[in-house]
Amino acid sequence: MRMSFVLKVDQSRENQWPDEFAKLMPDMPVRVWPDVGDADAVEYMALWSPEAGIFDRFPNLKLVFSFGAGVDQFNLSVLPPSVGLVKMIEPALTAGMVEYVAAQVLATHRDLPLYRAQQDRRVWQGHPERLAAETRVGIMGMGTLGVPCARALAALGFRVNGWARSPRDIEGVSMFLGPDALDDFLKSTDILVSLLPLTDETRGIFDARLFSRLPDGASFINAGRGPQVVTADLIAALDAGRLRWAVLDVTDPEPLPQDSPLWDHPKVVITPHIASNTNVASGVASVVANIRRHQAGETPVGLVDRSRAY
Amino acid sequence: MRMSFVLKVDQSRENQWPDEFAKLMPDMPVRVWPDVGDADAVEYMALWSPEAGIFDRFPNLKLVFSFGAGVDQFNLSVLPPSVGLVKMIEPALTAGMVEYVAAQVLATHRDLPLYRAQQDRRVWQGHPERLAAETRVGIMGMGTLGVPCARALAALGFRVNGWARSPRDIEGVSMFLGPDALDDFLKSTDILVSLLPLTDETRGIFDARLFSRLPDGASFINAGRGPQVVTADLIAALDAGRLRWAVLDVTDPEPLPQDSPLWDHPKVVITPHIASNTNVASGVASVVANIRRHQAGETPVGLVDRSRAY
Repeated sequence: MRMSFVLKVDQSRENQWPDEFAKLMPDMPVRVWPDVGDADAVEYMALWSPEAGIFDRFPNLKLVFSFGAGVDQFNLSVLPPSVGLVKMIEPALTAGMVEYVAAQVLATHRDLPLYRAQQDRRVWQGHPERLAAETRVGIMGMGTLGVPCARALAALGFRVNGWARSPRDIEGVSMFLGPDALDDFLKSTDILVSLLPLTDETRGIFDARLFSRLPDGASFINAGRGPQVVTADLIAALDAGRLRWAVLDVTDPEPLPQDSPLWDHPKVVITPHIASNTNVASGVASVVANIRRHQAGETPVGLVDRSRAY
Repeated sequence: MRMSFVLKVDQSRENQWPDEFAKLMPDMPVRVWPDVGDADAVEYMALWSPEAGIFDRFPNLKLVFSFGAGVDQFNLSVLPPSVGLVKMIEPALTAGMVEYVAAQVLATHRDLPLYRAQQDRRVWQGHPERLAAETRVGIMGMGTLGVPCARALAALGFRVNGWARSPRDIEGVSMFLGPDALDDFLKSTDILVSLLPLTDETRGIFDARLFSRLPDGASFINAGRGPQVVTADLIAALDAGRLRWAVLDVTDPEPLPQDSPLWDHPKVVITPHIASNTNVASGVASVVANIRRHQAGETPVGLVDRSRAY
């Protein structure tokens, strides 16, 4: 029996996936949901988010690929214990995130939102500036995306700290490990960048208590997930002058509702979840490389640890 | 006779220079204009811009230091032929410019002004993005500031081209040399960055003809000097959709007049000449190092070539 690959396309940007997949893996039939063909032949699937029972029809399913870098939208309880879930790790997604984080850290560091507001009022006035070498960027979430962001910011001259569970050895980056080190990490952070995955432990992590541990005038850039932020606490910290700028690429919910007070808050910069997207060509290439690894008996890159849910 | 150093402070940000200078060069008397002491003893001066006749009183003057990286504000005809003019080259000034250029190139590249405008209208909508690896940044003016900017942008993944008079060997940067190569350089530029000095040759260089040689949808970042831009031509190129964004840290005149159409042009980003400033500590250290070089019979770093006026 020739094993097959099933794509469940939920967003129009995945429409090019079948052609790209057929190009890179001509020996494996690719099927587009709901036309799955012989259910016994389905060994691999790619999708965003599964409904309950969706996998019950496929007794030979081995791996499920997520289209995204995060898998918080993925209900893990739906997945049979024998099936592995692989999150998206591909170079264009990483490159886009590095660009976005570098852009927003530099913009925040150089007070560009302040100059934008001055332009609206036709005010020509400079303000004291610090150099990157005097500015500490703290990155929470030092995984596939966080590590290259840390490297790029260090190369730009920033003092970079990372907070993670387990050690990383990155030149020019100081690591703070685990909950016990969070206080020291936050105390040493002028610009806080979150790239954390959304899990039970990180939901609501950015609250009044966390913001109160940052130095006065620190800024916050969220390129992780919206539900990690307690919005009322964020607004209170900005209004009290505790925080200088908040840059949010993710909100809760998305799209951000029309009546959200974040839209016109003078210290909030909103971008519509554009920090980084999976690229078709390199995303498919990443999935194909993982299928070949799996066929060779190796562990796929990006296999989700169910105990941690990321 | 103990030779002395005279500071002519024109802007309040130079007020700390005398103390800093005395700290680094305790053996040389430092005098603050107009209290110059014995005119015969004055061997070195630092200032922004000289009036006519200002140097006639100092028969033993050897070097004049400019507080700024550019010397276009400096009337060279006032300077006796025997006196050298040294422009400011110091690491903090360079670092600030690299930060500013990286910030604005990334912001332009990632369409942050578009998302800012969408936020004002509460619009949550992503747009197609290119990666830095697909984006060509062209830098005009590859001197002390341009070269490190080029390196930083190349490290961020951009395809970087430089335009200059004479060759430079910079890893990952393609050079285009002289007026004959300008056409090819402009044709290959998605984001044009100017760090050119203001001279007779560069005054008004950014005109309709130059903008017409850029690819459709190119952007322009000016961190050089305001009078290099023909403002009406720039606005016409933006309005015609030929140019996507213009980021101006310098204008003509400065401050930008209240009635300038640049202030509220939807495709123009204005910052009030804040790209980079001379830092007191490293600026004075640079002047002191140049005095020591001069005393040792060496050429100061940043000595202005009068035939080129920069």
